[in-house]
Amino acid sequence: MEEVAAFRSEHDLLGDRDVPMEAYYGVHTLRAVENFQISGQRLCDAPDLIIALAAIKEAAAQANMDLGLLGPTQGNAIIAACREIRDGALHDQFVVDLIQGGAGTSTNMNANEVIANRALEILGHRRGEYTHLHPNEHVNLSQSTNDVYPTALKLAAWAGIHRLLRSMGDLRLAFAEKAGEFSEILKMGRTQLQDAVPMTLGQEFGTYALMLAEDEARLSEAAQLIREINLGATAIGTGITAHPDYAARVRDRLSEVVGFDLLTSPDLVEATQDCGAFVQLSGVLKRVAVKLSKTCNDLRLLSSGPRAGFNEINLPARQAGSSIMPGKVNPVIPEVVNQVAFEVIGNDVTITMAAEAGQLQLNAFEPIIFYSLSRSIAHLTAACGTLEKNCVRGITANKERLRDMVEHSIGIVTALNPYIGYRNATEIALEAHRSGRGVYELVLEKGLMSKDRLDAVLRPETLTKPQPLILAETA
Amino acid sequence: MEEVAAFRSEHDLLGDRDVPMEAYYGVHTLRAVENFQISGQRLCDAPDLIIALAAIKEAAAQANMDLGLLGPTQGNAIIAACREIRDGALHDQFVVDLIQGGAGTSTNMNANEVIANRALEILGHRRGEYTHLHPNEHVNLSQSTNDVYPTALKLAAWAGIHRLLRSMGDLRLAFAEKAGEFSEILKMGRTQLQDAVPMTLGQEFGTYALMLAEDEARLSEAAQLIREINLGATAIGTGITAHPDYAARVRDRLSEVVGFDLLTSPDLVEATQDCGAFVQLSGVLKRVAVKLSKTCNDLRLLSSGPRAGFNEINLPARQAGSSIMPGKVNPVIPEVVNQVAFEVIGNDVTITMAAEAGQLQLNAFEPIIFYSLSRSIAHLTAACGTLEKNCVRGITANKERLRDMVEHSIGIVTALNPYIGYRNATEIALEAHRSGRGVYELVLEKGLMSKDRLDAVLRPETLTKPQPLILAETA
Amino acid sequence: MEEVAAFRSEHDLLGDRDVPMEAYYGVHTLRAVENFQISGQRLCDAPDLIIALAAIKEAAAQANMDLGLLGPTQGNAIIAACREIRDGALHDQFVVDLIQGGAGTSTNMNANEVIANRALEILGHRRGEYTHLHPNEHVNLSQSTNDVYPTALKLAAWAGIHRLLRSMGDLRLAFAEKAGEFSEILKMGRTQLQDAVPMTLGQEFGTYALMLAEDEARLSEAAQLIREINLGATAIGTGITAHPDYAARVRDRLSEVVGFDLLTSPDLVEATQDCGAFVQLSGVLKRVAVKLSKTCNDLRLLSSGPRAGFNEINLPARQAGSSIMPGKVNPVIPEVVNQVAFEVIGNDVTITMAAEAGQLQLNAFEPIIFYSLSRSIAHLTAACGTLEKNCVRGITANKERLRDMVEHSIGIVTALNPYIGYRNATEIALEAHRSGRGVYELVLEKGLMSKDRLDAVLRPETLTKPQPLILAETA
Amino acid sequence: MEEVAAFRSEHDLLGDRDVPMEAYYGVHTLRAVENFQISGQRLCDAPDLIIALAAIKEAAAQANMDLGLLGPTQGNAIIAACREIRDGALHDQFVVDLIQGGAGTSTNMNANEVIANRALEILGHRRGEYTHLHPNEHVNLSQSTNDVYPTALKLAAWAGIHRLLRSMGDLRLAFAEKAGEFSEILKMGRTQLQDAVPMTLGQEFGTYALMLAEDEARLSEAAQLIREINLGATAIGTGITAHPDYAARVRDRLSEVVGFDLLTSPDLVEATQDCGAFVQLSGVLKRVAVKLSKTCNDLRLLSSGPRAGFNEINLPARQAGSSIMPGKVNPVIPEVVNQVAFEVIGNDVTITMAAEAGQLQLNAFEPIIFYSLSRSIAHLTAACGTLEKNCVRGITANKERLRDMVEHSIGIVTALNPYIGYRNATEIALEAHRSGRGVYELVLEKGLMSKDRLDAVLRPETLTKPQPLILAETA
Repeated sequence: MEEVAAFRSEHDLLGDRDVPMEAYYGVHTLRAVENFQISGQRLCDAPDLIIALAAIKEAAAQANMDLGLLGPTQGNAIIAACREIRDGALHDQFVVDLIQGGAGTSTNMNANEVIANRALEILGHRRGEYTHLHPNEHVNLSQSTNDVYPTALKLAAWAGIHRLLRSMGDLRLAFAEKAGEFSEILKMGRTQLQDAVPMTLGQEFGTYALMLAEDEARLSEAAQLIREINLGATAIGTGITAHPDYAARVRDRLSEVVGFDLLTSPDLVEATQDCGAFVQLSGVLKRVAVKLSKTCNDLRLLSSGPRAGFNEINLPARQAGSSIMPGKVNPVIPEVVNQVAFEVIGNDVTITMAAEAGQLQLNAFEPIIFYSLSRSIAHLTAACGTLEKNCVRGITANKERLRDMVEHSIGIVTALNPYIGYRNATEIALEAHRSGRGVYELVLEKGLMSKDRLDAVLRPETLTKPQPLILAETA
Repeated sequence: MEEVAAFRSEHDLLGDRDVPMEAYYGVHTLRAVENFQISGQRLCDAPDLIIALAAIKEAAAQANMDLGLLGPTQGNAIIAACREIRDGALHDQFVVDLIQGGAGTSTNMNANEVIANRALEILGHRRGEYTHLHPNEHVNLSQSTNDVYPTALKLAAWAGIHRLLRSMGDLRLAFAEKAGEFSEILKMGRTQLQDAVPMTLGQEFGTYALMLAEDEARLSEAAQLIREINLGATAIGTGITAHPDYAARVRDRLSEVVGFDLLTSPDLVEATQDCGAFVQLSGVLKRVAVKLSKTCNDLRLLSSGPRAGFNEINLPARQAGSSIMPGKVNPVIPEVVNQVAFEVIGNDVTITMAAEAGQLQLNAFEPIIFYSLSRSIAHLTAACGTLEKNCVRGITANKERLRDMVEHSIGIVTALNPYIGYRNATEIALEAHRSGRGVYELVLEKGLMSKDRLDAVLRPETLTKPQPLILAETA
Repeated sequence: MEEVAAFRSEHDLLGDRDVPMEAYYGVHTLRAVENFQISGQRLCDAPDLIIALAAIKEAAAQANMDLGLLGPTQGNAIIAACREIRDGALHDQFVVDLIQGGAGTSTNMNANEVIANRALEILGHRRGEYTHLHPNEHVNLSQSTNDVYPTALKLAAWAGIHRLLRSMGDLRLAFAEKAGEFSEILKMGRTQLQDAVPMTLGQEFGTYALMLAEDEARLSEAAQLIREINLGATAIGTGITAHPDYAARVRDRLSEVVGFDLLTSPDLVEATQDCGAFVQLSGVLKRVAVKLSKTCNDLRLLSSGPRAGFNEINLPARQAGSSIMPGKVNPVIPEVVNQVAFEVIGNDVTITMAAEAGQLQLNAFEPIIFYSLSRSIAHLTAACGTLEKNCVRGITANKERLRDMVEHSIGIVTALNPYIGYRNATEIALEAHRSGRGVYELVLEKGLMSKDRLDAVLRPETLTKPQPLILAETA
Repeated sequence: MEEVAAFRSEHDLLGDRDVPMEAYYGVHTLRAVENFQISGQRLCDAPDLIIALAAIKEAAAQANMDLGLLGPTQGNAIIAACREIRDGALHDQFVVDLIQGGAGTSTNMNANEVIANRALEILGHRRGEYTHLHPNEHVNLSQSTNDVYPTALKLAAWAGIHRLLRSMGDLRLAFAEKAGEFSEILKMGRTQLQDAVPMTLGQEFGTYALMLAEDEARLSEAAQLIREINLGATAIGTGITAHPDYAARVRDRLSEVVGFDLLTSPDLVEATQDCGAFVQLSGVLKRVAVKLSKTCNDLRLLSSGPRAGFNEINLPARQAGSSIMPGKVNPVIPEVVNQVAFEVIGNDVTITMAAEAGQLQLNAFEPIIFYSLSRSIAHLTAACGTLEKNCVRGITANKERLRDMVEHSIGIVTALNPYIGYRNATEIALEAHRSGRGVYELVLEKGLMSKDRLDAVLRPETLTKPQPLILAETA
């Protein structure tokens, strides 16, 4: 009975090195694992990225075959291996830390090695028998990390963004539904936390829906920028070692593989060093975060209480709020969304610094850009999801309290400006504040308006949208 | 002879207050000046903003007249006063600190007061005789700070952005011209600061031009977002006190005044509290800053030396570089651009925080958003200007040194991958590095390629763009 | 009659150049003014910096005289000129933009030139007659921008920080006074914006005072770091061209001039390139900003209303709050403080990036570090000042409302945990919330505690500090 | 044979809920797991935090027993359970996402439940039989999340910081060793990337060591701040439900458990809401990051090449640098450190925002503060480790090239300032630059100094430290 060796020997520029026989990755991956023990989060924790890499390698093999640069034996084996990986196989073989030096080379090499060894198996060879099919010479043919890696980041980000867009869309619908449900509930609007003028709770919730809609539009725009790839650039964008037709061919093949149209950058030298699309994308994610956080701040304010706060709305109770205060229920879902927003804003600074630090023909810091960007996307997706399902859907309004606050408000005096003037209205407001009395009674008492006209001006439908002047005789 | 009083008395909700008789501003402005002694930079330091405010007040007066809400005597006087201000008059009367509490109310009131008092003069009255024409009741008619102020910020930003776009365009042309001038100069490209493969200096400079072109495109897109205004919203977006036709009317009038088409936000409640457009804009300015800074980092690297650095290009000497090191010339212009970039990135964090801090129906922190945004815009404009005029236009190349580095490089071995394989090429590279010898001679010595074919592969035009395989027989 | 020429000719490495005869600055300054038209804010807008430069030049002249390197004629004239500048003279001659390339060289040269020309005048020569006294050879003797500029930044920051500390101290006293005034006023404490358990308003305000006290301590610590200077380092810290005794001598002389003890860095090479002290200082300013902002957020929340908010305290009315809503009063002072805090946090990012971008033996980006740091310090000083004088001193409490909220709260059930257990207490809380009834009556109704004991447990003094268990029999 | 149920039923304010029988956690944990599916990183990924929680619960049980508030049966069972957890048991039962709403309540409840159920087992009961020993009433006795959670964060951070300090110390020693090894190697110093004046490579590396030493000192200072805890504060700092002697007692017990002295905050209301210590700590980590990044930027610059760069030093080759460029070796270790630095700087922004967002008596956003802070600490620790072991230890110098650059430099002319004056020296420098000739020969040719004196002035030991003037006759 033949004994199977525990290790195979592989060679790189540093010399020979034992690789576990069962490993699909090879010597380059092994070196990288030793060099980068940073975050404990590995490529296999980013399946979108692995799938993207496999898609690129598949498309490259096809393009190389199309151009006669790669024989069908090796080409088809590579394609078969890539398809398995895209279907979820061998992800555990992608073991390099996501935070890595080398501008993504270790990621690309990990992919090259796993694909090569799986393809070798498919061809009936043993892992490591690279004379039959080589990670660099065949799997990486016509490629460089510097075009493969940023392209893979873009494909992975694309997948993530579309999940985020769906999650945002669901949340938007939840807010819109509440806006409809609350469309007749009058309440006091507030500016600078001070009582302002009346509005409906529906208007307030409609705003949250609309903010999301606008953010979805901005995010979709930014996503378009990452459809532009630099495959064919090879090392620095000059296309060294690549066939002149390769860039267009691989783009078309990759578009087929991923199922949407990709574009080749008009200037591959520029495209190879430029992280502008990631900066833009992160900037838009920051915008999303800012508005989600503002919305959650509002939800927490409006539900403050129950007795010493605004107490306008009730968030659904999701868990006991305190280990010491019995019966306390806290806005835990908005709170977790706020925190994700703060994280996304911090990630944007990280991405900004990494993009700024690029030098000459390459940005070596794309790994941290991807690490930060992908977490921003994933955490925002989760945050929108829990906000929708565990919070917004269950919000209820305290209608009586809301109406009561409008009736006792001073701010409704604003509606009287066109009838009694800003100066008179100011006097009424001050007296109401000093005396604790109501605007309505004070205006009547001073004979500034007739009761009929005053009633007409203060009708809810008059207060919550623009109105023509109500003439004295018509009221 | 009648003596002119030094002060006039004005009244607000805090009581009576002496205002200098010669002042066009009034009691509200005076209170604000006392409350906000923060930055020493006042509204008069932001002429774009003053002009924007006057344009809005002019359009509002016209719209109010159109709707029969304002008589022609007062309306025309207001319009006349606004036109004077738009022409540059009375800017010194805008005295409130740019960093102010109150969500811009003091800015709006400063404008209302100056316009009212100038209009009173035009009508033959004295300043402060507000019974004839009142800052709030007439100048501010159908308006609120909460629609006027953000609209003014947008108009002011629009003006600034277009100056920036022109400055970026000039800088882009300067880079493009250099790219043309340097299009035949071969040099070593670098990735991760290590020698990579050859390219032309023209390709390098073309990249800087293209990055700017892309940023101009993104900035133009973001600028479109600020064409959407919320006039007609009044206090919180419900349009309280405003005529139903006012929003459309004032938008049309304002479009006439400023000379480009404005849009009314589809939901004025949302528009009144949303700072998304500013966040987006600042995010794009940050992107511009990131790329400008990267470009300047490159220029400083490429011109490092003269004897112990890269020494590839020469930046024009602009001033003595040292108070102690004679003859030293430093890259002072790129350095100042880097610093502006850092400032813009910091400003983006400020803007982000201010936007996130908005509550309920209003963001009270728009003053710091404008303060930061307008400085980002202005400083970037100046930075692009000095970079173009005082640096890029005068850059020269050290052609011999550039060619010399290519000839002695190891990186050209990459071009041989398709002919001798990655493994052989690695061996050649290592031996060249160890021995100090050249790739060319080593390849020939080892008989890996024929001299003719090697010469063909290493031709400059072959090295700097994609090429079909050079078959052995054709070389 | 002799005609006075309008210009004098000066020479630098770029050639000859006309300088206005009346200018005290010279050709180096003039070049810098042309190169850096960025912010419009010039050295003369930073008097602390000008005074610091003059102090250094005075101390250097004295040290050079002490060491026999500079003759008394020139030395004394330089000292006399420096003293005039420290007394406020000639500040208008410091005309370079604060945001400048060249690592501060233009600032140092501006100082050298103004001092040299004023010293020449004192000696009876004409401006520009540098053969008698030269900006570089005499005023800058034994110095380099690279030791003068960071030292000047530190002295200027020191002055600013101590103004800030005074302003923070005044604000702290104002909060402490209010804490005393409010020490007996019971109110509901809140966690996560939900009603929690009772406390006094004095405890709440005492917290604001204590936060400031801690920040003052941290800021004082960080300030100590900037007492360490690198004079004597010259160009890169090796002390080239400087006498071995110069570093100690100039430090002692400068300590005399400024009136506090300075230290010489133990390693001048490190000190010349390190911006750690500025990063640390900015980090502490950020901490101050964070807590001030939190405090102002609280003040705005607690004063929200008047009828639809918390309405616990009243901030003094400082100005009309709205151009449209009559009688509205807004928390304008806390709002401006919030905005300054956002700015300081953004400035910290700018400073961080500038510090990170330093290369090899020098950080060329100290000008933006100083620009950002000095604005953070100055704006925080102003913010604390207006917060103290125009807000905190005038805060009043709505005692009845505060007490009323405690009496109707559910949160007081927490105090009963030790007596009825967390589970029973939870049931009481839920029933109180559902029914709108009070905790007190429910506990009695269910017979969970005796009335006497319950009263004892719910006494204010029991609720607002730790208490031993109240045994059943003692109550 | 008795069948074991798969689930047990637990009760909270939301009602009954099945919990897996084998789970040590309970209903509160289960709710939290459902609410917070955000980052995929759970409490069990933060063992320092779990150990800290167990230490606190153990100390609390002991203090409660000391004060007669908890019987020995329950107390000792709790202590036994805590000790098991501190020894590494049951960590897999801490399953809540690290990013969570609720201000840490779910973390505290997860700990209470696991400890209670393990203690129940120890006492011979079944999990869930809380009548014998209750998570809230016994394990959490005298505590609140609001004092337990921040205290646990501080203990966990303390452990992490001390690991970081060790890692920084090792890196400092590696740099110091290289500084010694390189102490005699002369090289050109550079300012603003331009050739400046000579120094030794040892001085350059000594700087990196010293920067770390200073950062270690600052970090140790900041760590002292987190020794101050708020146990005894309970819900909001008033100590409600806690015995008056509890705070001191639990602090002493906890000091014994963790092995170092803790302090009780002098004002527990302030301490319960204040995140200043975390902001300060993160600010110092940012400072560490800034300097590490600057150091790595330098290492990458100095090792740039091998033929078209500075090529002054060699970083040890750690892995193949390129998938396409054979033989390329990249500075992958410094690159990964740079990226960690960018992450830390972004995390600081996240922490800053979270701290600023605290409201009234509590900061609800401490979970993201801990999440960010602990990653900053852990990644910096890993980064220093790989930098030391995989890079700095193996750095070698290219002595000949370094000396060659000094000999051909123009910058040495600076050393002649005291002898020939700044103006003459400038002329020499310009001529050297124009002609390509050497400073040495030009000075002699022009007869500006005697050969002997020139040789004396340009001796290496003269160039790299301050020197007295060399008189003409002594040379």
